[in-house]
Amino acid sequence: MTATSSSTSTRGPAAPTSAARVALRPLGIGDVRIGGFWADRQQANTAAVRVGRQRLEDAGNLQNLRIAAGQAEGEAIGPVFADSDVYKWLEAVAWEYARRPSDELLAMQREVTAIVAAAQDDDGYLDSVVQVRHGNQRYTDLPWSHEHYCAGHLIQAAVAQVRCTGDTALLDVAAKLADHLADTFGEDRRHDVDGHPVIEMALVELYRETGDPRHLELARYFVDARGHGLMAAYGKEPTYFSDRVPVREAGTVEGHAVRAVYLTAGAADVAAELGDEGLLEALRTQFDHMIATKTYVTGGLGARWEGEAFGDPYELPTDRAYAETCAAIGGVQWAWRMLLATGDARYADAIERMLYNGFLAGVSLSGTEYFYVNPLQLRSDAHADGNRSPAHGRRGWFDCACCPPNVMRTLAGLEGYLATHDGSGIQLHQYAPGTVRAGEVTLTVETEYPWDGLVRVRVDAAPGPVRLSLRVPAWADGATIDGAPAAPGYVQAEVAAGEAVELRLPMEVRTTTAHPRVDAVRGCVALERGPLVYAVEQADHDIPVDDLRIDPDAPRESEHRPDLLGGVTVVTAGELTLVPYYAWANRGPAPMRVWIPTI
Amino acid sequence: MTATSSSTSTRGPAAPTSAARVALRPLGIGDVRIGGFWADRQQANTAAVRVGRQRLEDAGNLQNLRIAAGQAEGEAIGPVFADSDVYKWLEAVAWEYARRPSDELLAMQREVTAIVAAAQDDDGYLDSVVQVRHGNQRYTDLPWSHEHYCAGHLIQAAVAQVRCTGDTALLDVAAKLADHLADTFGEDRRHDVDGHPVIEMALVELYRETGDPRHLELARYFVDARGHGLMAAYGKEPTYFSDRVPVREAGTVEGHAVRAVYLTAGAADVAAELGDEGLLEALRTQFDHMIATKTYVTGGLGARWEGEAFGDPYELPTDRAYAETCAAIGGVQWAWRMLLATGDARYADAIERMLYNGFLAGVSLSGTEYFYVNPLQLRSDAHADGNRSPAHGRRGWFDCACCPPNVMRTLAGLEGYLATHDGSGIQLHQYAPGTVRAGEVTLTVETEYPWDGLVRVRVDAAPGPVRLSLRVPAWADGATIDGAPAAPGYVQAEVAAGEAVELRLPMEVRTTTAHPRVDAVRGCVALERGPLVYAVEQADHDIPVDDLRIDPDAPRESEHRPDLLGGVTVVTAGELTLVPYYAWANRGPAPMRVWIPTI
Repeated sequence: MTATSSSTSTRGPAAPTSAARVALRPLGIGDVRIGGFWADRQQANTAAVRVGRQRLEDAGNLQNLRIAAGQAEGEAIGPVFADSDVYKWLEAVAWEYARRPSDELLAMQREVTAIVAAAQDDDGYLDSVVQVRHGNQRYTDLPWSHEHYCAGHLIQAAVAQVRCTGDTALLDVAAKLADHLADTFGEDRRHDVDGHPVIEMALVELYRETGDPRHLELARYFVDARGHGLMAAYGKEPTYFSDRVPVREAGTVEGHAVRAVYLTAGAADVAAELGDEGLLEALRTQFDHMIATKTYVTGGLGARWEGEAFGDPYELPTDRAYAETCAAIGGVQWAWRMLLATGDARYADAIERMLYNGFLAGVSLSGTEYFYVNPLQLRSDAHADGNRSPAHGRRGWFDCACCPPNVMRTLAGLEGYLATHDGSGIQLHQYAPGTVRAGEVTLTVETEYPWDGLVRVRVDAAPGPVRLSLRVPAWADGATIDGAPAAPGYVQAEVAAGEAVELRLPMEVRTTTAHPRVDAVRGCVALERGPLVYAVEQADHDIPVDDLRIDPDAPRESEHRPDLLGGVTVVTAGELTLVPYYAWANRGPAPMRVWIPTI
Repeated sequence: MTATSSSTSTRGPAAPTSAARVALRPLGIGDVRIGGFWADRQQANTAAVRVGRQRLEDAGNLQNLRIAAGQAEGEAIGPVFADSDVYKWLEAVAWEYARRPSDELLAMQREVTAIVAAAQDDDGYLDSVVQVRHGNQRYTDLPWSHEHYCAGHLIQAAVAQVRCTGDTALLDVAAKLADHLADTFGEDRRHDVDGHPVIEMALVELYRETGDPRHLELARYFVDARGHGLMAAYGKEPTYFSDRVPVREAGTVEGHAVRAVYLTAGAADVAAELGDEGLLEALRTQFDHMIATKTYVTGGLGARWEGEAFGDPYELPTDRAYAETCAAIGGVQWAWRMLLATGDARYADAIERMLYNGFLAGVSLSGTEYFYVNPLQLRSDAHADGNRSPAHGRRGWFDCACCPPNVMRTLAGLEGYLATHDGSGIQLHQYAPGTVRAGEVTLTVETEYPWDGLVRVRVDAAPGPVRLSLRVPAWADGATIDGAPAAPGYVQAEVAAGEAVELRLPMEVRTTTAHPRVDAVRGCVALERGPLVYAVEQADHDIPVDDLRIDPDAPRESEHRPDLLGGVTVVTAGELTLVPYYAWANRGPAPMRVWIPTI
């Protein structure tokens, strides 16, 4: 059979047009229904989204918009990008609604959307902090004002809203704002870019809803305008802003990690819609270099606190890893777009590593507490000297609250990143128990992944044999499909309705060493099992974690402990007990390390 | 004999009163005359001091003062602490003059002093940036305004000036400013402290010149006022400002490294003059903890770029070491005061390590180019993403130019840190060829230290036998004095006029490993010889320094190379060639590392 485009289903977070040059196409977000591991995390997130409404009230974000709307009096509160937290939360509400519609969610969405709409100026401009605090003096400090950044998040929320609830109220605001931007910025207009990318992805997605070529063109312009001295013209050091080298000439990612990967994700969208092979090729090179030299074993991105930035190649400290939760999210967004464009399994491998480790560590098991920074080591006597310090443990909110609502929208829309279809079949990239629908085909996936490596995919209904592509992760040496060897990449199977295929991924504990140039972990190993990176935590050890050594030859064992940390498979190696990295700091912020010395 | 206080000689950078509770007393700065290694560095510095005058003109520092004085029109330029660069330079001029008086130096001093004096307000206040840029709105932002910091450096310069040249012009300004401060701040006045310490050391030194107890009392007040929430009252995170814990209750140094050690140095001065044993004891504990857990093998202080700060215990990354040049200087200042107070050789050991390595690496062999940041590793492909990045190589000046004039004043006044006397004799803490005078005693020191370990001290004149105390560094296992074993610490000798004593310090290359909690250098060793820490530099190797390994068993050889880097002893270990760390990056900023992997 040929999987048909499921045009009536709800489109997810990144939905290329039919004209886009992509190898794979996402399924509708309602077409993937999951249970198990990620559903548990989504359930906790559902509670967090409801809490989020109050956080935005308490932190002043909503009030800023009310003041801009003339509905309240006062001064703007919080950072210049305060509006963006509202928009990320609105996006989370939309994906939440897609999974489980509720009047409560719809009421929250409509109430907050109305506040946003009321704050918009007549000409489409909207940024409450600028409107209130800076007397509506627009675009005076684009490197730092985050005006396009806030617009980008608004647009993303609007797109999610119309896709999930059908409400066009926020889309109307977004389109009016985008038109204002298109009237204002461009090669033949004001030649300038925002210091913080995200508008690029957003405008492409808006184009995918509106079909207005100006929106795509503006995204292309913002991608191509970077790297030509615009930040330097403001007296800014360009590296931080991903403005040192044009995107299509860069060989690596550098500077502020979230900025960098939001930009490349948007560039991938532009490349897909324009069929720009040169741009795509540059992004491949950058992605490869990032994975090879600037990515933690956890998938974490960003080695430096200073500038929340990527470090030099192989500069990957463990204790001072920044690995911002938002950077892992941006990394997933970029990798997803590269996966759609190329169909290359390594992007899905990267998504898996990021999601299960660097991203998921950013939120507590309860769903309502967050890490901004995700180190791979917490020392004894670590001093919490600031709001974001992981030595505090996870926190409900931050002075710079970018991460919490970013986690919310990512977990809420997670189904959008799991499976695709193409002209010939269905691809499963990430494994979760549940059902998958693509056109007339429905599948049931049975698995206890990530704890167990057996994945059984049954075709429940199909007009004919279904060509399934199942990802065999690069780590899965010895995988089998229906008993036959399955090499890393995608293994194919033709499955008729009523039949099933069984993928077995090996779940032996793996001992990982780093590239020898990663000085920070010389003489150390990390343990992995399936997609999960493990860590030693003080709660499981009597002697200080700082002083633990691992016997390279000690047998590795694993045991599922339903009672522990919401149910985890624990790994032991001699005297050491390891828990999944994502679950650390749920028993208090005590010493932890991922990389364990052998010497 | 009893060495007498040399009251007629020129007092150096820290000169306790006769009432101070100290174990050792500095010699006059003119009483120590040196040649050899440090004299070469001082000669280069002499050129730099002359260049410095122009730097201060070019960077706008002098113009700021002229504008404040009403001698020029315009806006203030540069950081809020711009004045302090002028004062550090003036202090350097004074110590330069003490060593080699010249009309040119005196003319420069008087010209600039006149500008400073003219800028002072009638009530004693002086801070040109506040006067010009902020409309003379004083003390509105003490955590960041650096008003006391600038006052402190002014006072230090004034004290040096009167000691070295006899000119009282700057002392008059300083005393008037100090009186203004004493009228304004205190327990029963405005209860507040500057975010950046240095005023504490400065006021004690001023007290040592003026004898005015208000100056000492204000210093004590500023020391004791810290750690009680003053910075938090401004909404600041207190750790950065050394304001989280009272000095006398702290167990470690933390936060911004320069702030931290300037504060403890000033506290040591206060403790000495007030005989405050409790305060001194707290400082001992903090110093020990710093050396044991927060000091690089180079003596560098400050592990983090973020906040230019000390890290957690054992957090000592090599590539991202901050190890600010100013922090090494502050470390020397603190250690010197602890040495005077206690007579404990470990403080002189620390001074040696800091001076020869972490400090001296901060300036080029030419004397006119500086490192702000002193890493222990520079990677291949390191990207210079800001003004201070060591990947640039040393630079003539910085946007924040604290380090260059700080190097100038330290090298210019270096003789002040080498020798002391007490009731019973003379102590030599650092070895340099030259002459030492203490009262009626004169000594000649012959040595090629740090290249050779033989130190010959001859008593040229003395009314009777002289008790000499010669420091045996902690690293000098196997040292001898006149052929007899000499244990680390101070070895004593009674030497009559016309006689000499020979100290031999072993100069075998030492292989150093770090504490196992220093994760950053696991599996690595550093090589040291005498007081010098060594490094591999790309210029001496064909394969990338990043990929070098050291054979733990390879024989270590050393050879003096008069032609290389101004004359250095090179160390080899198998295929590796190492040069003194202080001399790195004088052949271009190429990859370098101090800690070399064995695995």
